[in-house]
This record gives sequence, structure tokens and C-alpha cells, in this order.
Amino acid sequence: MSDEMGNNRVHENGSDQDQSYVVDIYPLSNYYFGSKDAIPFKDETLADRLLRMKSNYVVHGLRTCVEAVILVELFKHPHLLLLQIRNSIFKLPGGRLRPGESDIDGLKRKLTRKLSLNGDGNEIGWEVGECLGMWWKPDFETLLFPYLPPNVKQPKECTKLFLVKLPVSRKFIVPKNLKLLAVPLCQIHENHKTYGPIIPGVPQLLSKFAFNIIDS
Amino acid sequence: MSDEMGNNRVHENGSDQDQSYVVDIYPLSNYYFGSKDAIPFKDETLADRLLRMKSNYVVHGLRTCVEAVILVELFKHPHLLLLQIRNSIFKLPGGRLRPGESDIDGLKRKLTRKLSLNGDGNEIGWEVGECLGMWWKPDFETLLFPYLPPNVKQPKECTKLFLVKLPVSRKFIVPKNLKLLAVPLCQIHENHKTYGPIIPGVPQLLSKFAFNIIDS
Repeated sequence: MSDEMGNNRVHENGSDQDQSYVVDIYPLSNYYFGSKDAIPFKDETLADRLLRMKSNYVVHGLRTCVEAVILVELFKHPHLLLLQIRNSIFKLPGGRLRPGESDIDGLKRKLTRKLSLNGDGNEIGWEVGECLGMWWKPDFETLLFPYLPPNVKQPKECTKLFLVKLPVSRKFIVPKNLKLLAVPLCQIHENHKTYGPIIPGVPQLLSKFAFNIIDS
Repeated sequence: MSDEMGNNRVHENGSDQDQSYVVDIYPLSNYYFGSKDAIPFKDETLADRLLRMKSNYVVHGLRTCVEAVILVELFKHPHLLLLQIRNSIFKLPGGRLRPGESDIDGLKRKLTRKLSLNGDGNEIGWEVGECLGMWWKPDFETLLFPYLPPNVKQPKECTKLFLVKLPVSRKFIVPKNLKLLAVPLCQIHENHKTYGPIIPGVPQLLSKFAFNIIDS
């Protein structure tokens, strides 16, 4: 973030010392939204899914999932971009890495798949910033933890959250079977009932940042 | 953390890419514990405390509280150092800044007051690392939030958490009316009932770090 430290329009939410971090965020109205064909979901039973996870683990080992924390401004408050599936589950944009794929490459591929036109030559690209947090699944059936629980030697899945910084404007093209929503941080914080195990902690992971709201 | 990136004894909990962070932690048994005279607490009613906070705000404005996240290893799992007051409340070591005092200076002063011999000339000092998170109190009576809630222009208190890295060994000297405890991250995570609003989020704030457990 050091290239942004000189920024002089720091929101009052900010720390003003050496260790502060400043993130520029832009109004939701700066962005354009379109849709594209639905992407297929693996429609399967819980038992089938478990079986698939187990056989994948045997072949590829620890599975890594990468997810993006993307912010826009609305009513002077940071909003997090979330995808909603079938009017129920909320997810951060992202997904699982292919075997051998790097975190950054995989996240860019997933973001393009879910938020842009595929293979668009004019793609501006995605600016993947720092890793904000990691969650571990010690076993196939268990919950996620933000640490490797004691005595767990071979975790089955790791989910990494990355801050992805948006340019001043861009076009989002979202598959028809997904809904892209901007949800205020104050609605997400500790709201496990609606947002599951990982998303409610995002406001804490972002709390060290000063948001520089640029209303052009 | 860049000076530690070259470390080659990374715990398997770690990410192995550019953006990983490595923190060395040492066994609890490396440290020595002694006690010193009790430190006075401001023993007052809730109403008196509120009154004091309000008059302080009028004179000094936003109050800043700095707290330390200090880790040791026990049973191969990171443990957080917490102070317990009167066998009930748990707190991270730290406290409120004096007017004009910097975060780092204030935190070092508070850590010495609560965890070392005061004015010990041989004091090794405290290595204050990055800010992990910030919590805001929008009003005197309200809860803490890891963001500035919408429409709050003048927050009353800000609490900042800093990672403080321990040397391979040191002596902790704790006031007799405080208890110093090492609590496993897995016990703290989301345990709001026991640990209040801030501490249960510490495992998430630390989750991006790889802990390099050095058992000498």
C-alpha cells in the first residue's frame, strides 16, 4: 500500500501514523452492471459432494479456495460486493484453485468468470492486493477455523481472502443465475445467521484500513 | 515483516507465496514470571466513569486506546497473552494514550507498567509491529464496532490492536492484582461471552500469518 500513503484525502476513519493503510473506494454509481449466460453449478447431494471432495483430496491434496474482498462506497459507508446464489447463500466472489495454479492467477480467473465478460481482450484486469485472512477446514465434514486447530496435521481445505482494489470505473458482467449485491459493512459484522462463517469477520479484517472515499 | 520473509522454518500453517507473513513464536517455558505491587484501578460507579469519559472528551477529544497482541507457543498451538482483572474481565495488555502521545510510545509505556519492572534500566524494550485492527466507539454508552458506523462524525474512542513480537526469552513482572494468562486461539475464537467484543476476533486478525514455532 506504500504507493498510496501520500494520499492526502484520508477519511477521518483513518489512523494518521506510519502504519496506517489507505484504500481508495469509489461510489457504486461509478460502476456499470450487465449480465451474461448462467454458469453451471455442480448440482449434487451433500453425500455426492463429500465423496467428490474426498476423491479430489486423494489425488490433489489440500484444496485452496481464493476469495475477493471488493469495496464500493454508498451513503458514505463502505459496502462489500457479494454474490447471492439462488436467492439464499451469500458468497465472496472467487472459487477453488486448479492444481498447481497460483493464488493470484486463480483469483483473477474466477473474478473474470463471475464478474466480467470471459476472454474480453479489453479486460482491464484485477488488482489483487494483500491477503487479509485465511480459514482452515480440518476435515471434510467440519467447520472452518481462522487457525489450524491443535493436532490437525493434514487440513483438507484452506480459504484465503484477498483485498481486490477497483479502478475508478468498470463494467461488471454477472452470470444470470447469480446476483451481485453491495452490502454495508455495518450489516455484515457478526451477522453469522445471514452470511455464514467467513463474511461476518470481513469488517474486522478491514478495520486497520482508512477508507479514502472519492466521490467524483 | 519483510525482514522475516527469508526465514526457512515455516510452520505448515503457512502460505508460501509473496504475500505471506511469518511470525516467530517461542514456547511459554522460555519466559519467566514474577510479580510486583498492585497498580491502582479507578474504582468508580458506571455513572462516574461515564461522567469522567465525557469531561475528558470535552478537553481532549477522541480518546485512543492501544492494545497488544502477544503470542507464545504451548502444545504446538499459538496462545494469546491476556490479563485478567479481579478473576473476571479479560483484557489485552495496553491502555489509553496520554494526550499527544504516539501509539507506539503509549503502548510501550503501558506494557512496561503492566508486564515489566518500571524504569528497569536493563529493559529490553518492546517490539511493536503492525496494526492488526481498530475498533470505534461512536458514543459514550454504545458498543464498539470495527468500522465507523454510518453518520457517525465524531467517534468518542478508538481502540487499536498491535502485534507485539516477543524475544526468545524475557521476564514478565505482573502487578499482584492482575493475572497473566496464556489462552489458546481455539478457545478465544468467537467466544464473546467470556472475552467481550474485541478479543474473540483476534484469531481472525492473525489468520494471515504463518506461525514459525521455535522450540529450542
